[in-house]
Amino acid sequence: MTDYEMFELGDFTLQQGATLRAAKLAYKTYGTLNTDKSNVIVYPTWYSGQHYDNEWLIGEGMALDPQKYFIIIPNMIGNGLSSSPSNTPAPYNKARFPQVTFYDNVRAQHQLITQVFGIEKIALVVGWSMGAGQTYQWAVSYPEMVERIFPFCGSARTSIHNIVFLEGVKAALTADAAWKGGWYDEPPTTGLRAVGRVYAGWGLSQAFYREQVHLQIGYSSLEDFLVAFWEGFFLKKDANNLLTMLWTWQNGNIGNTPGFDGNFEKALGSIKAKAIVMPAEMDLYFPPEDNEYEVKFMPNAELRVIKSVWGHFAGGGANQADTQFIDENIKELLAS
Amino acid sequence: MTDYEMFELGDFTLQQGATLRAAKLAYKTYGTLNTDKSNVIVYPTWYSGQHYDNEWLIGEGMALDPQKYFIIIPNMIGNGLSSSPSNTPAPYNKARFPQVTFYDNVRAQHQLITQVFGIEKIALVVGWSMGAGQTYQWAVSYPEMVERIFPFCGSARTSIHNIVFLEGVKAALTADAAWKGGWYDEPPTTGLRAVGRVYAGWGLSQAFYREQVHLQIGYSSLEDFLVAFWEGFFLKKDANNLLTMLWTWQNGNIGNTPGFDGNFEKALGSIKAKAIVMPAEMDLYFPPEDNEYEVKFMPNAELRVIKSVWGHFAGGGANQADTQFIDENIKELLAS
Repeated sequence: MTDYEMFELGDFTLQQGATLRAAKLAYKTYGTLNTDKSNVIVYPTWYSGQHYDNEWLIGEGMALDPQKYFIIIPNMIGNGLSSSPSNTPAPYNKARFPQVTFYDNVRAQHQLITQVFGIEKIALVVGWSMGAGQTYQWAVSYPEMVERIFPFCGSARTSIHNIVFLEGVKAALTADAAWKGGWYDEPPTTGLRAVGRVYAGWGLSQAFYREQVHLQIGYSSLEDFLVAFWEGFFLKKDANNLLTMLWTWQNGNIGNTPGFDGNFEKALGSIKAKAIVMPAEMDLYFPPEDNEYEVKFMPNAELRVIKSVWGHFAGGGANQADTQFIDENIKELLAS
Repeated sequence: MTDYEMFELGDFTLQQGATLRAAKLAYKTYGTLNTDKSNVIVYPTWYSGQHYDNEWLIGEGMALDPQKYFIIIPNMIGNGLSSSPSNTPAPYNKARFPQVTFYDNVRAQHQLITQVFGIEKIALVVGWSMGAGQTYQWAVSYPEMVERIFPFCGSARTSIHNIVFLEGVKAALTADAAWKGGWYDEPPTTGLRAVGRVYAGWGLSQAFYREQVHLQIGYSSLEDFLVAFWEGFFLKKDANNLLTMLWTWQNGNIGNTPGFDGNFEKALGSIKAKAIVMPAEMDLYFPPEDNEYEVKFMPNAELRVIKSVWGHFAGGGANQADTQFIDENIKELLAS
């Protein structure tokens, strides 16, 4: 039994030129749309995350309170629930699944929200990591529609260093001959485990490991953390799905929205939404410096930094203090 | 024709229990040993580096001036010139090459220096990265012999985060089925290239890529930098040699010197040498914080940070400003 709905996008032509036929967008909603449709929050997913992975930020008394808001979590294309290499029929299956941008994802989400729910205003778009990429994209693609954005631990344009980090992830995965250029019948488990080990150094900070937080949260040794958490995390994922989302991530840049001709700063300047941009102090691939640069060009944005040793995962919902800090700031943004 | 000498170590029993028979230590010297043997500098190599890779820090008018000093560069065990998986006969060849510690390396170097040259005092031990690991080890293993140490972009104990970074490197390399558990006949080139891509994000800083320094130094694009520099760098290396040195690195800890029972702080406290410890501000795997901790326990040490966007490679000799800063500080240490 599934706990989500499926929106049929029909023939969906992507920014890079391919057409996904009978494309699908999986989503889940929380709470009730009020009569004037003014209580909408859109909360896109992150790299490999599915809607339920976002639920830690939703709850009674929290900023994302389903008693007050109608919260929509659209699953990112490629994440295994929406159209993905793993669930698309030939000829666009597996290694042939096309390249998808944040722009495409947000356009699909816009169709869902307008066609299914008749929504015209969004009180808030909020997202972590690649979810933040989609959050910025919402504000650029639909500036009249989005009232507030709260991108955390993400960026409006993927930095060169971040692209390089992802090259390492991709190279580790595709070094496994079982991957077969994407035409595997059995999962390339060696490559997926290697991805887990490569990711383990990036996802958290030097200080996280220095303070041995991995032991405090229930792992019996460093090796146990690498196997039980990191290898376990990626072993459950489909390799082609990961590579599809990785391409989306590497090519993240709101400057590539039609009308901006690659002008990143101009795209930032077009954002009308009120924004709190929230990096984590020790995030190794979305460092605060990149967001500082963005906020300079955004007319109505403020930078606030999460002080935490959790690095990128300060925004992952695993650490209570970080979650509380994020939640309080979203409350403040929603009240403004 | 070789430009180095070979010292025969004979049967050399390692800290972990194996005996390397007919073990060899390759080395090169620069300058002339003076009559009272007071002008000795030992300058160990780094991860996969060979003696000539150290030569950027040697020159007339520089701190390491062969007109004044007798400089010895010993090649690290496993680096392809000294005893290594790639040059050791069966049964200790290839994947069966034993585990080697910094302690072993320094003991071999000590034999060279005392037996071949009759040296009793070392004016300075200096080294970058794993060379820094050997530098600390010299000061702990032979405290009466070492007058000064200058470890840069390295540590006396490999941090947990650094160990995790190396797990990613190792997993990427060994994901290539051509590696065959170390029993390859042809190099596992896919894995070696993957190592290059994984390393590319770690070796330099976020700011290095943000400022596009890779373009300023002669690469035509990011992809060109990843292929021509990073893949090219590791493709020339032997996979088992890399894994041997990786084990040495991951297990770096002067606290494991016999007599200290794993007590890291006690080992730091035993260092008699005058020290300047020099991390690079944006080094992602040897961050300054780890050296700050060390210096607290060292009786005669000072921490000085290289301000540079070059990350770990601030100590690699590629950036003139960093090289000059390092050189000036070594001069100051030698004069004191």
